[in-house]
Formats: sequence, C-alpha cells, structure tokens
Amino acid sequence: MQQLDQTYDDFHGTIVTDPSQSGPRPGVLIFHSIAWRSPVEMDAAERLASMGYAAFVADTYGRAPEGPEDCRSLMNGLNADRGELRRRIGAALDWMRGSGVTNGQHGAIGFCFGGKCVLDLARMGEPDVKAVASFHGLFDAPTWHVAPRITASVLALHGWDDPLATPENVLALSKELDAAEADWQILAMGGVGHAFTNPKAQDKAGGKQFDARATARAWAATEGLFAAAF
Amino acid sequence: MQQLDQTYDDFHGTIVTDPSQSGPRPGVLIFHSIAWRSPVEMDAAERLASMGYAAFVADTYGRAPEGPEDCRSLMNGLNADRGELRRRIGAALDWMRGSGVTNGQHGAIGFCFGGKCVLDLARMGEPDVKAVASFHGLFDAPTWHVAPRITASVLALHGWDDPLATPENVLALSKELDAAEADWQILAMGGVGHAFTNPKAQDKAGGKQFDARATARAWAATEGLFAAAF
Repeated sequence: MQQLDQTYDDFHGTIVTDPSQSGPRPGVLIFHSIAWRSPVEMDAAERLASMGYAAFVADTYGRAPEGPEDCRSLMNGLNADRGELRRRIGAALDWMRGSGVTNGQHGAIGFCFGGKCVLDLARMGEPDVKAVASFHGLFDAPTWHVAPRITASVLALHGWDDPLATPENVLALSKELDAAEADWQILAMGGVGHAFTNPKAQDKAGGKQFDARATARAWAATEGLFAAAF
Repeated sequence: MQQLDQTYDDFHGTIVTDPSQSGPRPGVLIFHSIAWRSPVEMDAAERLASMGYAAFVADTYGRAPEGPEDCRSLMNGLNADRGELRRRIGAALDWMRGSGVTNGQHGAIGFCFGGKCVLDLARMGEPDVKAVASFHGLFDAPTWHVAPRITASVLALHGWDDPLATPENVLALSKELDAAEADWQILAMGGVGHAFTNPKAQDKAGGKQFDARATARAWAATEGLFAAAF
C-alpha cells in the first residue's frame, strides 16, 4: 500500500491507497482512539485501501501525545468542546474532499473516541458522507445542533459489556438516530467489552478486552455497509 | 434444488439440498412464522441449500392451517404450552439427526414465531446445535428451565420498531443470554418493523413492514454466522 503523510490546517494525517488500483475511489476517514494513531488505525487503513478505498488516517489532536496522561488531557479537552471537535472532524473531511483522490463519496470509521467522531460526522448531515461505522464508540450527543436529517448510514459496533456505552446509552442513541430519520444499525455483541479491536486491551475485569471474534464480526458488517453505500 | 417431503412423528417437513454437492453437510432447520410454511421459508431453504447446507423446513403445527384464525389458534396454543413447543422443536432436530443427510453439525433459522423456536432450540443447550439466527423473532423466555449454558451462537435480527419485541424485551434477552454465557449478537436495525423479510407485510402503521435492505443485512449476518460456526 502507498502511504503519504499530509499536513492540513494544524493536523497531520496519512492517506493510504492501493497503487494497483487506479482512479478516484470512495474515501474513508479513520478517526483514532484516545491513544492517537496506533497500529489499529494504520492496519484499518491498509485493510480499507485493499478493499479499494482511499483511507485517510485523520488527526484530531494536532500533535503526537506525550504519553497516556497527555492523551487523556487532549481527548478530554475535545470532549469538553464538541464544537472544536466538530471543526477538526470537518477539517479532515475537507482535506479528503479537496485531495483529488476520491470520487466525491465519503465514509468514515473510528475507534473508541474516534467512534464518537464518526457519529459526530454523521450528525453534521453532510450529503457526501454516505456511511460511518463506529467501533466501540461513545454515544453521547454533542452540544451543537444535530442535523435535522442524518443522511449517512450509521453502524455502531458495540460490545454489550462496554462500561463506556451502557444499554441506557444504546437506547438514547437509538432515539437520537430515529429522531434524525437515520438509517442505522447497532450490532450488539454479548460478552464483549470496550476496545475489542485492540490487541493491547487486556483488562477483562475493567471491561476493556481484545476479542478477535468480535473484531471479525465488526469488520464483516463494516464491509457490507460500505459495499452497499458506495 | 432437490426437495423431499418428510413425515416425522405427527409433523410434515421438507428437506432441501443442492444435488450438485455431495456428501453429508451441516443441517439447518427452518422454523416457520405464525402463517406456517410460506414462500419465505421455502426461499430460505433454497438459499441455505445453495450455500451448501441441508435445509429442513420444520413443522410445529402438524397440519396445514385453515386460514388466519386457525394460524393464530395453533400458534397461541404452543405459546401457552412451551413444553409442547419444545417437544416439537426437538422432534425436528431429531429427524435431522437421524436423516443421514447431515454431518452432525446443526443450526437453525426462524421467522417471527419461528424466531422464538430457534431461541428455544438454543435454550435447550444441545451441543450439536452450533448456531441459530432469529429473524424478527419473539424473545420471551419459556416456562421450562433453560440450559445453564447455551452453547449455540445466537444471532437475533431485530427491527427496532418491532411492536412484538420492544427495547425492554431486548434488554431482557441480553440478560438471559448473558446468564447462560451465550455467544450472542443482536443486530438492531432502526426504522425497521416486524416481519421485515416478508414481502406481503405492508402495514407500516401497524409495525409490520417488508424491508429489502433489512432483509439483505439480516441474511449477510446469518451467512457470516454459519460460515464461522460450521
């Protein structure tokens, strides 16, 4: 796969494409977890590129964090300022739009905090965003006014034991998405916790646990989502 | 596809296989909706047969119903006697086991009332039943004692607007399956009602509505379930 680092606004992304495929193609944004870009995001980009998409690993922090505390601080700052987070999500989308790499159809995936970012992207109601998939994402609605109609197809890949997204949060998300007339799916997986895509997550008691089977199921649903959307 | 009618105990089933494929293969039981066997069940059998499975359209009524009122009466009788329903589900499984057609691995799908049947089949805890998929099924637990451990992988394909299976019912099912340590998935689909696989369901206001997109998503998830289980 071809990887090219990109600076846009104050952010640093990477576009990943399969050079054996030619021409514009659907573009998929990848939003990182609390830990900023990691092998999870880069592997996802390679996977999406091999599926024929232009995968853009976005950046919402603006710099590499200096450790777990810094990660938490950067993420919490954006959680406390959802308008600024929206601006940063929009900056990544705008880069993709202007890149010339895509065919004008866009989608997104994200992990954990990035799963919240893709839901926010859907909430923006941009018509070129066709589908988003949230992997163990956070569901809390932003402070800004959600688009009256969410046009992107929304897929939430959700471990039922995720302590950061409870059954009550699932119900609230379903109501929010219904109110916005969204085409939505939530794949709830029993016995699965937060961070199930991350091989480094090994804290079953704390509700964060890698799960290869859940990861495979989540990806299969995502592939189906994008195949139908693009 | 090859279709052969079978009488077992007091019931009348049909085994559907692809004659171009040879030898024993995983067997999938198909449990009918309130309306007894219909094109939905027969089409599902052809689909499963073409996927390489031996598909057995089971019968829990024992005779062809004589109209909608008779259907309701037959179904309500079994809903009121879950032990008898269990016996009839077990009779279909036993036919499959003794048929010589399967390789000893079994699964099931079912629609509406049949979706309840496949959950009951999973609740029986039979180790040769590897996976079940419930299409717009009913979730209420039976009166008999559910197996302490549900060994089948369980997939519920669920329209979120289904008036017969509310969000509260989803929560109750998740708790029941967690208690039985089941590997479970619930694919909740927004804006989708009951009977979404049935082209004759055209009562949006009443919560029963055919949905081709939801049907495609449900089948994709089911294919993934069986591919992993068998």
